[in-house]
Amino acid sequence: MREVAIIGVGMTKFGKFPDKSIKDLGQEAIWKSIHDTDINPKQIQAAYVGNGLAGVITGQEGVRGQVILRHAGFSDIPIVNVEGACASGTIGMREGMIAVGAGVYDTVLCLGVEKMFCDDTARTLFALSTDTDVETMGGIGFTFVAKYAMDMRKGMEKYGWTQEHFAIVAAKNKYNGSLNPFAQYQEPMTVKEILNSRVVAYPLTLYMCSSPADGAAAVIICAKESAHKYTSKPIITIGACELSSIHLPNLKAKTPGDLDFEAYELPVRAAYEKAGVGPQDIEVAEVHDAMSPAELRAYIVLGFCKGEEIPVWLNQGKTSLRGDLPVNPSGGLAARGHPVGATGLAQISELVWQLRGEAGPRQVSGRTGKGPRIALAQNAGGFIEGEPAVSMCTILKR
Amino acid sequence: MREVAIIGVGMTKFGKFPDKSIKDLGQEAIWKSIHDTDINPKQIQAAYVGNGLAGVITGQEGVRGQVILRHAGFSDIPIVNVEGACASGTIGMREGMIAVGAGVYDTVLCLGVEKMFCDDTARTLFALSTDTDVETMGGIGFTFVAKYAMDMRKGMEKYGWTQEHFAIVAAKNKYNGSLNPFAQYQEPMTVKEILNSRVVAYPLTLYMCSSPADGAAAVIICAKESAHKYTSKPIITIGACELSSIHLPNLKAKTPGDLDFEAYELPVRAAYEKAGVGPQDIEVAEVHDAMSPAELRAYIVLGFCKGEEIPVWLNQGKTSLRGDLPVNPSGGLAARGHPVGATGLAQISELVWQLRGEAGPRQVSGRTGKGPRIALAQNAGGFIEGEPAVSMCTILKR
Repeated sequence: MREVAIIGVGMTKFGKFPDKSIKDLGQEAIWKSIHDTDINPKQIQAAYVGNGLAGVITGQEGVRGQVILRHAGFSDIPIVNVEGACASGTIGMREGMIAVGAGVYDTVLCLGVEKMFCDDTARTLFALSTDTDVETMGGIGFTFVAKYAMDMRKGMEKYGWTQEHFAIVAAKNKYNGSLNPFAQYQEPMTVKEILNSRVVAYPLTLYMCSSPADGAAAVIICAKESAHKYTSKPIITIGACELSSIHLPNLKAKTPGDLDFEAYELPVRAAYEKAGVGPQDIEVAEVHDAMSPAELRAYIVLGFCKGEEIPVWLNQGKTSLRGDLPVNPSGGLAARGHPVGATGLAQISELVWQLRGEAGPRQVSGRTGKGPRIALAQNAGGFIEGEPAVSMCTILKR
Repeated sequence: MREVAIIGVGMTKFGKFPDKSIKDLGQEAIWKSIHDTDINPKQIQAAYVGNGLAGVITGQEGVRGQVILRHAGFSDIPIVNVEGACASGTIGMREGMIAVGAGVYDTVLCLGVEKMFCDDTARTLFALSTDTDVETMGGIGFTFVAKYAMDMRKGMEKYGWTQEHFAIVAAKNKYNGSLNPFAQYQEPMTVKEILNSRVVAYPLTLYMCSSPADGAAAVIICAKESAHKYTSKPIITIGACELSSIHLPNLKAKTPGDLDFEAYELPVRAAYEKAGVGPQDIEVAEVHDAMSPAELRAYIVLGFCKGEEIPVWLNQGKTSLRGDLPVNPSGGLAARGHPVGATGLAQISELVWQLRGEAGPRQVSGRTGKGPRIALAQNAGGFIEGEPAVSMCTILKR
């Protein structure tokens, strides 16, 4: 496969936009990503559109990407719609990367888009169930929040994490979000405010959790060998974009209360190997924290540190904007907002800005002080039997 | 890209199955396709799942392929869900083909699945609208049937087609379907019965039209170089699988009443070029006739004959099972049934059986009498501004 580069990124502000349709959101992100390059839109040869929930929430299914691209002024390009819950956007970029890598196309537009606010909150909540037979029709009512809460309680037991540690990481991300003009929540918050907010599912409080959001993010990729034709900005190479699904734990090997993160680790290991780097090389990361405390799980999964080292890491601010290894400089899912199909490409957009030195007040400095050169995005989507239905890891290099 | 081969196919009967879920349908097709090969299921490295409407119709969205594959007993393989209305299944196979061609995987399972019967017919009809803002919320109510009827009326005007010609092609396909154990409708019908059935939208009568259906079809593909490891049956190569979307006509160049099939022709031209064959080489074809008379359009689009030659072709039975160029030996969409996401891979399954000489009473003989060696599938999905949102052409070679 040829090497594939990112030449343009763009996103809408994430938030509640009753007047904007999924078409409007998609169009805005698409054109922002085009204007981030020197490409002539007619040079875009194909599009991959990631969306998780528009069928249930908005009723637009079947050819959703075609409808959005047409609204944005496109015609006559192959369009592939992909779906994988909160990882939809990244899956689309991976499919685009494979097609460019294979030489099927030279330039591909990747869009992640989601419209979660509608006139019926129950519909949005229903859409978020992942296996509807089990979770909804079956009446079990197992939710994402419950799963996150259970994992965090196990972490408290096993690693000595406390609810205050969870509030510390949430406060870090709220601060980062306050510097991000695209974030849904741009108000910094104290550890105390977060701890004192309503308990959603112990140990998770309201301000640790992401909420529904509308938004879109787009990424333009091309064969690395021709990237200089379309941009004068630093060219970002996709070192790896790995995907795994429905990895189930070895139930016999598990003891009660044990934490098994292997489903999250598989694509990370694969991505490190493919990109030829390790945890020690990562200078900035965006991770999948639909609840801010899930960022702690990511530190373990990504090999940044051990579970029992995390309290010290948090107290030392190692993953804050000015720390050794900034994580979620964008604010992460809980502060930037989590329009599920758009989240993966919002992570990629943030990392591209960081790698180019374009992240403004939230720019991280990298290990050498000259800006980061290697970045990582960790993304996941859905649950099946308590494990992520989709698990992904992307490594970018300047 | 490496050459890619089909080593296994399988499908459910198409029809109305109130007791079967989308998971049950998917599972049955998956295991039939596996049993059609000598592959060990653990050797399947990834899956692509095409579905058009389950979000709106069944409420299962987000990670639908993961839910189906898990139900079928799979874990630990990357799964990508794709969507493109009536072309969803073929789009999934194309994405799988690109990934195998690029060397990302060696063996891939492709599934097309749809569950259209539910407790609320209005929901199924709503799901079939392609741009919901325009067709449903906008109140225009433009439907697939209306579009097909308008095109056929133009064909009557321009080429001298009559309603009887439409009934002749429908009767041919009903007969073929009567020989197909997987078909939703297995009753042969006379031209007179078809002409006398209720008018749905003139010139289309009830028995010319496909109706909702439940069903699934699966295809296993691999790198051609290793296909002999997984099957002792004839190896079928994918010569081309081309995709275009939202090709809009040049409105200025059109005169009222003109028929413009270019959106359907584009992937056909590309597929002929890529596979290095032309219309004269095709020995059997499956075409997208959601209404049987649309098969006439396909003859033109595929370069089989000119519009004005079609009445003679029909009267001579050129495209019947024993004709020079059999089209829709399976019965086509209107007789086999049209569970939208499954249709594309049902076409591929039929052509694989024909190319292998396994099609039983509906086996065609090919030009040399030794069975066909080159086959073509034409597929489309959705409408935007009166043109197909997705248009595809696949060429298979023994």
